[in-house]
Amino acid sequence: MTYNNITSLLTPAKTKIVLLVMDGLGGLPMQAGGLTELETAKTPNMDRLAAEGMLGQTLPIDYGVTPGSGPAHMSLFGYDPQKYEVGRGVLEALGVGMYVHSGDVAVRGNFCTVDASGVITDRRAGRIPTEEAMPLVEKLKAIQLPGVTLEIKHVKEHRFALVMRGEGLLPDLEETDPQRTGVAPLPVVAKTPEAEKTAELFNQWVAEARKILADQPKANCLTLRGFATDPRLEPFKDRYNLRAACVAVYPMYKGVSSLVGMDILDVDGETPDDEFKVVERAWNDYDFFFIHIKKTDSYGEDGNFDAKVHVIETVDEALPRLLKLNPDVLIVTGDHSTPAKLKSHSWHPVPYLLWAPDTVRPDDQNCFGETACARGGLGTINSLESMPLALAHAQRLTKFGA
Amino acid sequence: MTYNNITSLLTPAKTKIVLLVMDGLGGLPMQAGGLTELETAKTPNMDRLAAEGMLGQTLPIDYGVTPGSGPAHMSLFGYDPQKYEVGRGVLEALGVGMYVHSGDVAVRGNFCTVDASGVITDRRAGRIPTEEAMPLVEKLKAIQLPGVTLEIKHVKEHRFALVMRGEGLLPDLEETDPQRTGVAPLPVVAKTPEAEKTAELFNQWVAEARKILADQPKANCLTLRGFATDPRLEPFKDRYNLRAACVAVYPMYKGVSSLVGMDILDVDGETPDDEFKVVERAWNDYDFFFIHIKKTDSYGEDGNFDAKVHVIETVDEALPRLLKLNPDVLIVTGDHSTPAKLKSHSWHPVPYLLWAPDTVRPDDQNCFGETACARGGLGTINSLESMPLALAHAQRLTKFGA
Repeated sequence: MTYNNITSLLTPAKTKIVLLVMDGLGGLPMQAGGLTELETAKTPNMDRLAAEGMLGQTLPIDYGVTPGSGPAHMSLFGYDPQKYEVGRGVLEALGVGMYVHSGDVAVRGNFCTVDASGVITDRRAGRIPTEEAMPLVEKLKAIQLPGVTLEIKHVKEHRFALVMRGEGLLPDLEETDPQRTGVAPLPVVAKTPEAEKTAELFNQWVAEARKILADQPKANCLTLRGFATDPRLEPFKDRYNLRAACVAVYPMYKGVSSLVGMDILDVDGETPDDEFKVVERAWNDYDFFFIHIKKTDSYGEDGNFDAKVHVIETVDEALPRLLKLNPDVLIVTGDHSTPAKLKSHSWHPVPYLLWAPDTVRPDDQNCFGETACARGGLGTINSLESMPLALAHAQRLTKFGA
Repeated sequence: MTYNNITSLLTPAKTKIVLLVMDGLGGLPMQAGGLTELETAKTPNMDRLAAEGMLGQTLPIDYGVTPGSGPAHMSLFGYDPQKYEVGRGVLEALGVGMYVHSGDVAVRGNFCTVDASGVITDRRAGRIPTEEAMPLVEKLKAIQLPGVTLEIKHVKEHRFALVMRGEGLLPDLEETDPQRTGVAPLPVVAKTPEAEKTAELFNQWVAEARKILADQPKANCLTLRGFATDPRLEPFKDRYNLRAACVAVYPMYKGVSSLVGMDILDVDGETPDDEFKVVERAWNDYDFFFIHIKKTDSYGEDGNFDAKVHVIETVDEALPRLLKLNPDVLIVTGDHSTPAKLKSHSWHPVPYLLWAPDTVRPDDQNCFGETACARGGLGTINSLESMPLALAHAQRLTKFGA
């Protein structure tokens, strides 16, 4: 259980917090008796932080539950992903670098194939390759509708994201994918009378899109899924009194950070050192830095154990630049586990290192790795506890009760 | 907290899970500085599994709470015993091998002694010995009532269980035990108008029973407690998409398993090896096997440390038969602790071993015992987390969120 009113305990301070997230950090040994990716990596700097600080392991959602990246980050930011749902349409849009603001409606689109009678013969248009799908998305950009603006971007293969912006739009709409072949795509139907105008607009958009796609051999139709809008999360500034910045290379993570009101800083390059340089430059302007390293996850998903090890080592090598800034609290962790052995996100707890020279109670672990974290002084905690711990160690929380 | 909608994350798989429960497994050293029953037992097979797998300790209910066998198993099966109450009448009936189906009303009966004026002089009929009580229960079998069928079985000493079956029966009835001597047993009173017919039937049954018992020296009357019906638990198949089988020797455990829709397999003999042979034969027909070993608990209750140690050793010796089947997930644990030192169930956490060659993250423990489990990678978890963990390690759960 997480203390549910951290905001009420806030007290002013000038301390600085860095949350360094290596995506999918947690791993597994490839063979029985072996080491994990993090345990294999040579990480002298992190090992020193582990010796001086405290280790633990986090559950992003709960025991046995494998999180997507969206919910996993929400949890690290202290927003319960079981309570604050970020809709599929929003995540899809964020993932390709489109922002979704209050009042916008975002939706995920799938190209599909229909026969002459209009019934679906393939719900994914034969998983049309990206290079064939991208030009189709370009064509759909031509569609204009009265009173709203439209933004569309290709995601991958048959998938794209669409954002509609305008006055009085609502996301309470039924999906148009009938979830099976042999029937026609469904119309966009409003779940409430207030959403009828939005439904009508999306139906008009679909009609225009079908005209444009009519003569395509595979992707001659489309379905829309997961209508959603900005989840209206309380901004970091209000919730934690932190001026917060996001330093990330991939759109999805900038997007999730923007949902909680972080400033998104531009990164020139994409190495850990490039990202740390951005922190260096902006150091005086913010109280909280979220730094996101993507490639640990990418190589985990590829099953490339050695490449994941190498990314961790480049982070460690670059770390002195960050440490020279003298953060008051530095957390080094992942959002979830992505063991190369499983080639996917997993439910395994995530290594967690909390370093805070003035305030941390050190444990007896001196090496950053899964086994050490399982024996760390912090124990096993839900990722939701990370923000309260960060604020406390930064001396930004006052006493509860007299 | 346990993730509250595991069903929504299910994904098809052909993997197999074995839950091996040694009842009352957790123990205590008899003297300061000594070892527990499990630590004393020679368990080379379990120690190997511990080295390859992950250890932890479970709380069946919560810190300091000693569970009965019913709630302890409910928790291991993933049904919160604080939420899904299995009434005392149902547990008593299950405990003597009677099934309680939807619409049946089960109740626990106590023989008592009343004086000539009808007031209770002994609420337990002097704890009448089993051999004297059994013939009385036989006599009560003669009672017949219109429109319902009745099943009655002796439990132990002054206790028996009664199940009434028929149309329109409801368990919303007040107990008849006044909880003190010097007053008459209470009538069966309906708590709702709909239950009045059932109350009337039970009152008729009590009247008939009192006639039969009238000339008994001690057990000349009775009280009824804990009216209850089938708790209508969601079956394992619906909740977890698992075809589940129970391999147990004692009625109570078959009963609790039947409440969650497991198939109950017949066991020829009662050694661990006899039970494992049943699993061997049924291996292809099920995805989940619950195997229950009773005697660890029985000897714990007797205070027989050495005999409990020996039972654990016979389980370990038989284990290769189970391992040869190549389960994807094997959990070895208890439902609760029954330290021989205390001669009773206790609140102490329960040793828990999770072995899953393809997916487990091993910790640095290599010996199955209470001290090792307290230092295991899994930490201390509620038993409710066992099913999500089993499903995750069997790769039967998909991602939460995108």
